[in-house]
Amino acid sequence: MVSAGEGSARARSLSHVAPADVPLQTALEALADPVRRTILRDLATHDDWSRACGTFDLPVTKATRSHHFAVLRAAGLIEQRDEGARRLNRLRRPEFDAAFPGLLAATIDRAD
Amino acid sequence: MVSAGEGSARARSLSHVAPADVPLQTALEALADPVRRTILRDLATHDDWSRACGTFDLPVTKATRSHHFAVLRAAGLIEQRDEGARRLNRLRRPEFDAAFPGLLAATIDRAD
Repeated sequence: MVSAGEGSARARSLSHVAPADVPLQTALEALADPVRRTILRDLATHDDWSRACGTFDLPVTKATRSHHFAVLRAAGLIEQRDEGARRLNRLRRPEFDAAFPGLLAATIDRAD
Repeated sequence: MVSAGEGSARARSLSHVAPADVPLQTALEALADPVRRTILRDLATHDDWSRACGTFDLPVTKATRSHHFAVLRAAGLIEQRDEGARRLNRLRRPEFDAAFPGLLAATIDRAD
């Protein structure tokens, strides 16, 4: 049961995990997906908070898209915030690199 | 159907894939398993060809163990050869590092 005090489903879904608290296994599972690496590469080449979830060109359904963003958030790879109807994103590059040195360089800074 | 000319199941299972021919997705899936990282870390800290498959201390059945070694071989991470009843292993570090710079350093050269 969810009490009214816990807010809307949309708001509740924006829990974040700090990269320092993410197990390596979780980080690797998050990176071991081509759609998620596409999202991360896209974020890596754009300014923080400049990309809304709906603007990514992904060959998946809306539900699958939401799942991918949730996995990336839970792995400490992205931060999200809602701005009106848009959900904006940033790659947590500095803090993820501090927790997993070299991992993003070895995975998203290269062609698949 | 398998003809006699293709040799025994044991011999046939020793096909290898060069790291340069391995997709990043395959490499990441191979690394995204704690048992497989245990095997790789173990190999990284021992001389090439000094460890037989049976000597690894792994919390899995013999069939699962064989599966893990097959996944590592298919991802270009290990090389195997049979010596009598023993199947010996080496980590393909130089050639894997050349194909995926920094990926082993970011995954097996750290605690889980």
